[in-house]
Amino acid sequence: MSTVGKAITCTAAVAYEAGKPLTVEEIIVDPPKAHEVRIKVEYTAVCHTDAYTLSGKDPEGAFPSVLGHEGAGIVESVGEGVTNVKPGDHVIALYTAECMKCKFCKSGKTNLCGAVRATQGKGVMPDGTVRFHNKKGEDLLHFMGCSTFSQYTVVADVSVVAIDPKAPMDRACLLGCGVTTGYGAAIKTANVQKGDTVAVFGAGTVGLSIVQGAKVRGASRIIVIDLNQGKKDWSFQFGATDFVNPSTDLKEGETIVSKLIEMTDGGLDFTFDCTGNVHVMRDALEACHKGWGQSIIIGVAAAGEEISTRPFQLVTGRVWKGSAFGGIKGRSDMGGLISDYMNGKLKVDEFVTHERKFTDINEAFEDLHHGDCLRTVLDLSK
Amino acid sequence: MSTVGKAITCTAAVAYEAGKPLTVEEIIVDPPKAHEVRIKVEYTAVCHTDAYTLSGKDPEGAFPSVLGHEGAGIVESVGEGVTNVKPGDHVIALYTAECMKCKFCKSGKTNLCGAVRATQGKGVMPDGTVRFHNKKGEDLLHFMGCSTFSQYTVVADVSVVAIDPKAPMDRACLLGCGVTTGYGAAIKTANVQKGDTVAVFGAGTVGLSIVQGAKVRGASRIIVIDLNQGKKDWSFQFGATDFVNPSTDLKEGETIVSKLIEMTDGGLDFTFDCTGNVHVMRDALEACHKGWGQSIIIGVAAAGEEISTRPFQLVTGRVWKGSAFGGIKGRSDMGGLISDYMNGKLKVDEFVTHERKFTDINEAFEDLHHGDCLRTVLDLSK
Ligand SMILES: NC(=O)c1ccc[n+]([C@@H]2O[C@H](COP(=O)([O-])OP(=O)(O)OC[C@H]3O[C@@H](n4cnc5c(N)ncnc54)[C@H](O)[C@@H]3O)[C@@H](O)[C@H]2O)c1
Ligand SMILES: NC(=O)c1ccc[n+]([C@@H]2O[C@H](COP(=O)([O-])OP(=O)(O)OC[C@H]3O[C@@H](n4cnc5c(N)ncnc54)[C@H](O)[C@@H]3O)[C@@H](O)[C@H]2O)c1
Ligand SMILES: [Zn+2]
Ligand SMILES: [Zn+2]
Ligand SMILES: [Zn+2]
Ligand SMILES: [Zn+2]
Repeated sequence: MSTVGKAITCTAAVAYEAGKPLTVEEIIVDPPKAHEVRIKVEYTAVCHTDAYTLSGKDPEGAFPSVLGHEGAGIVESVGEGVTNVKPGDHVIALYTAECMKCKFCKSGKTNLCGAVRATQGKGVMPDGTVRFHNKKGEDLLHFMGCSTFSQYTVVADVSVVAIDPKAPMDRACLLGCGVTTGYGAAIKTANVQKGDTVAVFGAGTVGLSIVQGAKVRGASRIIVIDLNQGKKDWSFQFGATDFVNPSTDLKEGETIVSKLIEMTDGGLDFTFDCTGNVHVMRDALEACHKGWGQSIIIGVAAAGEEISTRPFQLVTGRVWKGSAFGGIKGRSDMGGLISDYMNGKLKVDEFVTHERKFTDINEAFEDLHHGDCLRTVLDLSK
Repeated sequence: MSTVGKAITCTAAVAYEAGKPLTVEEIIVDPPKAHEVRIKVEYTAVCHTDAYTLSGKDPEGAFPSVLGHEGAGIVESVGEGVTNVKPGDHVIALYTAECMKCKFCKSGKTNLCGAVRATQGKGVMPDGTVRFHNKKGEDLLHFMGCSTFSQYTVVADVSVVAIDPKAPMDRACLLGCGVTTGYGAAIKTANVQKGDTVAVFGAGTVGLSIVQGAKVRGASRIIVIDLNQGKKDWSFQFGATDFVNPSTDLKEGETIVSKLIEMTDGGLDFTFDCTGNVHVMRDALEACHKGWGQSIIIGVAAAGEEISTRPFQLVTGRVWKGSAFGGIKGRSDMGGLISDYMNGKLKVDEFVTHERKFTDINEAFEDLHHGDCLRTVLDLSK
């Protein structure tokens, strides 16, 4: 019996309150309206942004809601006017939409689409309403335009991209956030060139994906900086040439900035913050080479925190910028990333350190706090 | 009788002590050593950097010294091995050297040459000694590799460029700093394109020269922000399309950032700080358009002051950078600027609001504090 046009009852993990575990329960998912797509989510990973919002530290976090934004699945049905995907397509949900029509999309200068930004930020669909309800009849908010912590979700058509069905979804889901963010930051935002020197602060999924991107581009030096010594082996495995642990590898009087400048004869061509720590962001900038070094902020800082430096750092040629979703345009560029993955150019499988059934999602949030976890992938069929 | 190879006694304005007026007196200027050039300085302007150092606020300022870095003159003699200029050449002294050989010069990414940086910062010639002495036999330090507050000065050959002798030196001297810094920031560092929107904070010589550069490039909107209402007419004269005085033009609840974003439907493509105020630098960044706006710091902040912002400003696509000497390579690019001036594309004469004889130099420092002064040019023959 077809589900098209009908509400679907399925299992979801609902965030009812900040700081509390998610509630795994049955919810009702409405059919897609015009320019909306209903997806049967097959796999989702858990990212720090989900944990950040659940913790209550995100001032824009709203509850009750269905979190999750690193997911892959199959289109179940589409609303009126949807032309970019069709039922049966394998897809990745995109928290950075791409409408191809707005001022941002048409600028050729950014991947930050403006189409659904305002409603996405409020946790509703573009028409201002929600597609999720619990059994008590309460509305549940959407999250980052994706809400992959549900067996079925509804997203705007501009927030979804079809992928090669041969790509395994339990791995491709990571391209919905972490891997793409890092790899794109290296090959698109920074556009690292052969011979460039690169430093990556923080060797999580994002940082290690930058390492991969820098390696693909032929960087001459890829230095990873992490406080967790356990990240050393991983760093080398993904292509790093050096690993520095600031808590153990600095000599008397040395700072991480002075050490990096000394290691690279004047500083780096590119540095990346993947820690979210504003002090690390400053170090990353100041470790750049005078005249041309660029520092790219990717980490998300705690609410209200600020970055600082002396303006002289910029007047003498360092550039401070940032990157969201690696500068990747979800609909235009995802095909290329999937090919890079399928061709073995982009490692994705290696990030899956844990796999769990969906109903154990609260353990997946625990995994995040352990240094040995890059990504936990949840199987929504279980 | 030729002066070549001999010490020259001439008039200079010596900075003996921070916070005190300059002492106009006779000094002795040694002949140039290898790769050095002795220049008969014809005209010099006074820039804020001279005043900053004289004030004692510059932690690197050293005394006694011969200040001045916005000067033009005629080569009197050259030391061994000098090939880029010859006696009789009309020249501009360059506080940003260009050796064409160092890592920086060869990078193609910056105008910050490393050749004489260390010694220039210490106020000595590349061999570690000085060419200036007072009548008591005391050594006088050099300044910014130029020291144009003397009828004769000695500079490194990498710190001087010959110019078209038809260019009037009493105007061309301004290309030694302020005009070049602003014009270059617009056409080189920012590389403003047709239709771009631009905001310039601070309408001094630097800011008004950015206005000119943006106009030459066909910017669609050039908004000048200055607290001095007297700068309004000048701004329009140089090509501004709008003038905002934050002390009088903001409505209740409006900030300069919100006003600029509203005026430009989302923010500017390029903003420039030419005030040296770190709070203005932040406003300039935050008034940039999400996704691609770039803010360029040119103003020199007081020692120890820092810039700050929320990292989210950068993650959402704004870029924070700086510019020194407008990104201009003194020896390679000056010819083009002189042509732009001679062809009427670049206004220079208009900046000379005051002219004085050299011996009135302390009045020229006073002029700087008056809102009606852009540049005072001193005639060293008087
Ligand atoms: N801009 C974007 O579009 C975007 C997208 C996804 C994730 N993020 C952010 O990127 C960051 C990295 O994400 P992730 O999934 O790789 O996180 P992660 O927690 O797996 O990795 C962070 C790494 O940084 C290290 N670290 C922490 N503090 C450090 C310090 N002071 N010095 C050195 N190393 C330090 C940790 O040991 C860890 O290995 C997070 O802040 C996340 O929120 C941003
Ligand atoms: N980076 C470089 O290579 C370089 C070279 C030359 C000069 N500079 C610096 O550039 C700056 C500008 O130089 P200039 O010669 O044009 O100086 P100026 O003093 O003639 O002009 C500064 C202008 O800024 C305005 N202003 C001051 N505070 C303001 C505020 N809070 N808001 C708005 N406007 C404000 C003033 O009214 C004035 O019109 C100085 O800081 C100077 O040291 C830098
Ligand atoms: Zn994420
Ligand atoms: Zn768009
Ligand atoms: Zn100057
Ligand atoms: Zn050089």
